[in-house]
Amino acid sequence: MGIEPIQTLASRLARLPGIGNKSALRLAYHILDMSEDGAKELADAIINARSKVQACKICGAYTDVDPCAICSDKSRRKDIICVVAEAKDVLAMEKMREYHGQYHVLGGVLSPMNGIGPSELRIDELLKRIKEQGVSEVIIATNPDVEGEATSSYIARIIKQNGVRVTRIAHGIPIGGNLEYIDEMTLFKAIEGRREI
Amino acid sequence: MGIEPIQTLASRLARLPGIGNKSALRLAYHILDMSEDGAKELADAIINARSKVQACKICGAYTDVDPCAICSDKSRRKDIICVVAEAKDVLAMEKMREYHGQYHVLGGVLSPMNGIGPSELRIDELLKRIKEQGVSEVIIATNPDVEGEATSSYIARIIKQNGVRVTRIAHGIPIGGNLEYIDEMTLFKAIEGRREI
Repeated sequence: MGIEPIQTLASRLARLPGIGNKSALRLAYHILDMSEDGAKELADAIINARSKVQACKICGAYTDVDPCAICSDKSRRKDIICVVAEAKDVLAMEKMREYHGQYHVLGGVLSPMNGIGPSELRIDELLKRIKEQGVSEVIIATNPDVEGEATSSYIARIIKQNGVRVTRIAHGIPIGGNLEYIDEMTLFKAIEGRREI
Repeated sequence: MGIEPIQTLASRLARLPGIGNKSALRLAYHILDMSEDGAKELADAIINARSKVQACKICGAYTDVDPCAICSDKSRRKDIICVVAEAKDVLAMEKMREYHGQYHVLGGVLSPMNGIGPSELRIDELLKRIKEQGVSEVIIATNPDVEGEATSSYIARIIKQNGVRVTRIAHGIPIGGNLEYIDEMTLFKAIEGRREI
């Protein structure tokens, strides 16, 4: 027995990340039990987010106004740019509330296996901004995995040729982390990045 | 920094069962990365399911035609009714493919703490169907928890007064289950329901 509208909804939900067939069906049943208004609000929120949110033309972050609130905020420092791989990384950084410079979203990381080379990333735009904005420091905040590190090294080399200071965010034991359960790579980074106290 | 359409979508998604704030945000980002068509299909599926799926007027199961496919299937036995608590339980039973009788959805279980008494459940409709359809057996398939058992006993007592056979689905060790890890209540049910081999 297949009730078509339920099956269709469940199969669409099952395409979302982290939602298997069983959870998709459970969510579909929940939606059936929602008020008609509640279901409409959820559907509208999906359409709205998809249609109104775009990439900022300057930094590439998610925004519903262009340029984004960060790029057009005159109180933020223009001489420092934090380079991240994905648009969502900007929101993660902003949650910290301690960084008051600009951002630049690469739109991915170098990945020769997947055919992503330097020209697929927003590297030229970054170099252009560095020159035009009079940037004095670029903080590279790609993830500490193989591709993130390779992307970081590649970009750092190019930028340093322009005489601009390049830094990398620190990697080490997370706050609340326990030495016993930390992987060797993180421990290595923690020792390597040790600082005088 | 709050990008309103993303925040709204994430907060709507976080109202779904089993989806916390972090997963909701992750799903929202995924939806931003979907094609415009993909996002529209998901939104439409939600609206469609909510508006087209209703409760069958006879049995109370989810359906997009009324009466539902099961109630109007002439090849199914009319003299046997399986009583379940929720509409979704019908779909779970049907997956088994071995039951060819009718269903009756109660719309919940007796729960005095939550103000759900016999009149809040579709018990009168069940008694009416039993009389009008010439039912000879009622299988009670509410869940084996306190409320499900109480509901089962209550309904069984009423139906037996009408001279109709009432049965309860078996409870015991699930297939693939391991004695070592089974809770005492299930073990007790398994012993209590033991059969000659």
